[in-house]
Amino acid sequence: MTVLEEPVNVAEDSAVAGASDAPPRVDFDTDPEHYRHWRFDVEGETATVYLDVAEDGGIVPGYELKLNSYDLGVDIELYDLTQRLRFEHPQVRSVVLTSGKDSNFCAGANIRMLAASSHPWKVNFCKFTNETRNGIEDMTEAGQTWIAALNGTAAGGGYEMALACDRILLVDDRSSAVSLPEVPLLGVLPGTGGLTRVIDKRKVRKDRADVFATKSEGFGGRKAVEWKLVDEAVPRREWDRVVAERAAAAAAASSRPADARGISLTPLHRTETDDAITYDHVRVAIDRAARTATVVVAVPDTLTDDPAALHDQGDQHPLLAITRELDDAILRLRTNELEVGTWLLLTEGSTEAALAADRLIADHQDDWLVAETTRYLKRVLKRLDVTSRSLIALIEPGSCFAGPFLELALACDRQYMLEGTFEEDDDATLPSGAAAQEPAALVVTDAQFGTFPMGNGLTRLGSRFYGDDEALEAVRAKRGEELFAADADDLGLVTDAPDDIDWTDEIRILLEERASLSPDALTGMEANHRFVGPETMETRIFGRLTAWQNWIFVRPNASGPEGALRKYGTGRKADFDQKRV
Amino acid sequence: MTVLEEPVNVAEDSAVAGASDAPPRVDFDTDPEHYRHWRFDVEGETATVYLDVAEDGGIVPGYELKLNSYDLGVDIELYDLTQRLRFEHPQVRSVVLTSGKDSNFCAGANIRMLAASSHPWKVNFCKFTNETRNGIEDMTEAGQTWIAALNGTAAGGGYEMALACDRILLVDDRSSAVSLPEVPLLGVLPGTGGLTRVIDKRKVRKDRADVFATKSEGFGGRKAVEWKLVDEAVPRREWDRVVAERAAAAAAASSRPADARGISLTPLHRTETDDAITYDHVRVAIDRAARTATVVVAVPDTLTDDPAALHDQGDQHPLLAITRELDDAILRLRTNELEVGTWLLLTEGSTEAALAADRLIADHQDDWLVAETTRYLKRVLKRLDVTSRSLIALIEPGSCFAGPFLELALACDRQYMLEGTFEEDDDATLPSGAAAQEPAALVVTDAQFGTFPMGNGLTRLGSRFYGDDEALEAVRAKRGEELFAADADDLGLVTDAPDDIDWTDEIRILLEERASLSPDALTGMEANHRFVGPETMETRIFGRLTAWQNWIFVRPNASGPEGALRKYGTGRKADFDQKRV
Repeated sequence: MTVLEEPVNVAEDSAVAGASDAPPRVDFDTDPEHYRHWRFDVEGETATVYLDVAEDGGIVPGYELKLNSYDLGVDIELYDLTQRLRFEHPQVRSVVLTSGKDSNFCAGANIRMLAASSHPWKVNFCKFTNETRNGIEDMTEAGQTWIAALNGTAAGGGYEMALACDRILLVDDRSSAVSLPEVPLLGVLPGTGGLTRVIDKRKVRKDRADVFATKSEGFGGRKAVEWKLVDEAVPRREWDRVVAERAAAAAAASSRPADARGISLTPLHRTETDDAITYDHVRVAIDRAARTATVVVAVPDTLTDDPAALHDQGDQHPLLAITRELDDAILRLRTNELEVGTWLLLTEGSTEAALAADRLIADHQDDWLVAETTRYLKRVLKRLDVTSRSLIALIEPGSCFAGPFLELALACDRQYMLEGTFEEDDDATLPSGAAAQEPAALVVTDAQFGTFPMGNGLTRLGSRFYGDDEALEAVRAKRGEELFAADADDLGLVTDAPDDIDWTDEIRILLEERASLSPDALTGMEANHRFVGPETMETRIFGRLTAWQNWIFVRPNASGPEGALRKYGTGRKADFDQKRV
Repeated sequence: MTVLEEPVNVAEDSAVAGASDAPPRVDFDTDPEHYRHWRFDVEGETATVYLDVAEDGGIVPGYELKLNSYDLGVDIELYDLTQRLRFEHPQVRSVVLTSGKDSNFCAGANIRMLAASSHPWKVNFCKFTNETRNGIEDMTEAGQTWIAALNGTAAGGGYEMALACDRILLVDDRSSAVSLPEVPLLGVLPGTGGLTRVIDKRKVRKDRADVFATKSEGFGGRKAVEWKLVDEAVPRREWDRVVAERAAAAAAASSRPADARGISLTPLHRTETDDAITYDHVRVAIDRAARTATVVVAVPDTLTDDPAALHDQGDQHPLLAITRELDDAILRLRTNELEVGTWLLLTEGSTEAALAADRLIADHQDDWLVAETTRYLKRVLKRLDVTSRSLIALIEPGSCFAGPFLELALACDRQYMLEGTFEEDDDATLPSGAAAQEPAALVVTDAQFGTFPMGNGLTRLGSRFYGDDEALEAVRAKRGEELFAADADDLGLVTDAPDDIDWTDEIRILLEERASLSPDALTGMEANHRFVGPETMETRIFGRLTAWQNWIFVRPNASGPEGALRKYGTGRKADFDQKRV
C-alpha cells in the first residue's frame, strides 16, 4: 500500500492530513510484499489470515495503531488480501481470520484517528470498511467461507470484522471478550454494520443487543455463546484443534472447484495528472471549475466470449481489467476528490464487444474465473450505488451500453441519450471525444435481470420500474434488440432523449443546476431515491445505520471539543448536551 | 389549540421560543371551535377538509404563515381533526382534503419557522407531521378514504400532505403544480415522507423522481399525470363535479358501517405541575436530576369486555381514555421534556381487567368503535417505537402487563421483572408506589400476534424473536397463562428478573448508566435496534429518510449562517461547502 510516506501522492494542500478538511490523497495499490499489517498463509484448502498491525504504520501521521487497531491503510490491505484470495488462490475454500498478536484480536478503528479526522474522512473510511465487510460475506457465499478465530478480545470494529464472518470462535480464557464499546465510550455507533448484524444476522434479541451495545467490556465465554454473540467459546488448550476442525468442515462444505488455478493481480497501468486518471480502458477527466468528473469506459474489440481467453490473459483480459480500473477510479475519486460532485459516465466501443462480455458472463458461470469476475463487477456496481456523488449517464454515438455495461447507466441517477447523431462541428463538445456517426443504441440482456443485484436484492431495472411490472415486462420483451433513443425513451430506459440541437444546452444546464445544489441535500436525496422498495441487512447498514452515524458524527456530543470522541483517553468525561432529539 | 399566547403553558426559560434550544412548551389540546387553520364540513358520507391558515397564527412568534404554509400548531389541529373524523363522525367514508384559499393549496412547512427553529424543534416537528400523515393512510385503510383535491399549487410539505392521500387531483389551469422544492431552494430534504412516497407509493421512476425533486417549480397538468405525480389533472370548469364523483366513488367502495353513531372527544382530565402530569388513568412523574420520567398506566377494574360499555361511556371508557392519555403524555414528554432521556413504563391494576380489554379487542373487531379504539392504540404504540428516548419496562407486583398492555413492555428497549415480591420496607423505592404482595405476572394473548403491528409489519414479539421461530412458538404455546418472572425470563420475554435483594441496585445502576451515555448515540442505537428485519415505506420514512434529514439539518450547508435555510428569501445565495460526504 502506498501511504503518506511517498510524497508523490500527497497533494500540496493536504499536509495537515486527516485532521483537516483536506484529507491526504489516498492510493489503494498494494500487494502482500508491501503489507505492513496483515499476512496470510495458504495451506491446502484453508487460508489463515493474521491481523498484525504495525503501530507506527498509520496512513496519516498523528496516532499509533495500538492494540491491533486499524485505520484506512489497514483496511486497504485487507481489501487487497480478499481480492488476492479470490483471484490468486481460488482453491481456498475456508479462511480463518485471526490475530498475529498474543492476547488481543483487534481493538477496532483507531480512536485517535477518528477523533482527529474530518467528517468526510470518517464517512469515507466507514463506507470503505463496510464495503470490505460486505465483500467478506460475498466471499463466503462464493465458497470461500470466513471463520473468525478470536484468540483474544475483539472490541468495536474488531468484533464487527468478526460479525462479517460466517462463524465466530472466541477463546474461553476468562479475559477475552467481544464488545461494542462505541456508545458507552465514544458516543458514536458501531458504524461498520455492528448494530445491524448483531440483531439481523446473529439474531440477538433486541433487549440483549441494547445491553451489549451499552456495556463497554462486553461478554466472553458461556454468556457470549448463550447470547449468540459468538458461536463457540473454546478453551485455549483445544483452540488449535477446534479452529482447524471448523476450517476443514467449512472447506468440505464449499462448492468451489478443486482444480482451479489462480491468476496474478499485477499493478494497474495508471497515469495520473492534476486533472486526469488514465488506465488501459478507463479514462477519468476532472473539471474542477465545473466540479465534474467524466468517466469513460472503453470496451475494446479484443473482448471475446471465450472463457479460455480470460484464463490466458488473466488480469489483462479487458473485462477483468475494466472492472479493476473502474473499482480503482471510483475509490480514488470518492476519497480524493470530495468537491467533484457530479460524475458523468460514458462508454466507448462496439455493441458487439459489449455483447461478447455479456455472453462470456451469461454462458460460463460454471467457470470459476468468469464467476469471480462477474461477482467483482457486481461489487463495483454496488460501490456506485452507495457513492455520494450525482451520477449521470451520457449515452452518445460510439457508446456501448449493452448487457453488463448497461448496468453502468442504470446505476446512475439520470440517463441522457442523444437522439440521432451529432453534427460534425459539434463534436468538440463531446465529453467522450467520440466522433461516431451511428446513433447510440442500448441493448438489454439477461444481465439486467438478476446477474447484478443491488444491495436491496432488486435488479437496477427492477428498482427503476418498482411497482410497474408492465413497464418491466415491456423491456424484457426487447432483450437483445438495439434500442435507439426514441425506443429507449418510450420504454422508460432514459430520462430524456434530446437531439443534437438541444443536447449541448440541456447537458450544460443540467450540470450547472446540479453544481448549484447543496451537496448534503443531494447526498441524502440520492441515498433515498436509489434504494426503493425492499431493504436488506446490507441496505440497512448503508441507509439507516450509516445515516444515523453520520448525524452522530457531526453532533457536538461526539465531535465537539467536549464530545466523547475527543475526550476519550484524556481521563476527562465528555460534557453532553442532554437534549434527546 | 393552546399556543404560546397562553402564558400558563410557557416555561420560564423558553421565552426565546423555537429559535433557541429551549423550545416553547406545547399543548396538543384543541377542538373545532378553536381551530384557526382548518375547518371541515360533513355532508352525508363525505367530509370536506379545508386548510385555511391564519397568517398570524404561528405557534411561536417570529414568522407569518403565508401561502397556507404550516407549522406545528397547524399540524396539531390537523391531528385533532383526524381523530374527530374517526370517533365523532364514523359515518364518513371519504375525506376530501382541499384548500380554503382561492388559488393555492399549501406551500408546505413555513420556511422562516424552520430557519429560526432549533434542531430538536425541527426534528420533533417532522416526527409529529410524519405520524399524522401515516395516520391519514391508516384512516384510508379503515375506510375513511382521503382524496387530495389540489385546487392550487401544492409545494413541499403541501404536496407531501397530498401524497398521504389515496388519490390526488390537481386543477389543470396552466399555473397550478405539485413540487418538492426543498433540495433546490432550501438545501434540505422533503422530510415528511416525500422522497419515499414518490418512489415507493406513487411508483415514480427514480430518475424522474430525481428530476422532480431538483426542479423547484415542479410539474402540473398532463406531465404531472404522465409522471404519476398526481392521478388526474382536472380543468377548473369540471373541478367540483369530478371531485364530488371521486369522493362518492371512494365512499361507495368503503366497508364502513352506515349506521355508526359517533362519540364525543371531550377535553382530557389533566393536571400538570412542574414535575408531574396526572390524568384519570395515566400518571407521569419527572425526576429532572435523574433525567427520567416514570409513566404509570393504571387499568381500573371497571374495564369490561362489553362493547356496549364502550359506546355508553365513549371517551370516558377506560380503554379509550387510557389510549388518549398515553398519546397526550407521549407527545408532551417528547416535545416539552427534551432532557428527560429515559422513560420507565409501568402498569398498575388487575390482570383480569387487562384481559377484559384483551377480549373486548379480540372478540369485537366488527364493532366500529372497538376497531377504531384498537387502531388508535396501535398508533400510540407506534409513537413509542419511534420515540427517541430510552424506554425501560419495570414489571412489578401489582402490575397488569397482559394482552394489549403487554405491548407497552414489548415496545421498550429493555424489560425488568421482579422475581417474587418486595419486602415491605422496600416499598418506598417502588416507582409505581404499588404495595401488592403477589408476584407480577405477564399474560401473552393473541394481542401479541398481529393486533398491533409495528411500522415494519412485524409484531413486537416477532421483532423480539426475529429469526428465532422456536422461541416465538414457545411463547405462543403459553398464551393465556400467567407467566411469573422465572418463566418469563426462560421464555425470553424479559431482559432480567432480579429478586428484591438486587432489584433496587440493578435499576439504579441501569438508570445512572443510561443517563451517562451520549443522548445522540442512544437515539441512533435505539432507532437501529428497534427495527430489525424487514422494512416498509413507513420504516424507511422514519429510518433512512429521517436519519438523512437529521444529518442535513445540522450541517452548515442547511442551518449555518451561510446555509440555504437561512439564506432563503434574502435574495442572497447560500455559500456551500462543496465537499460531498
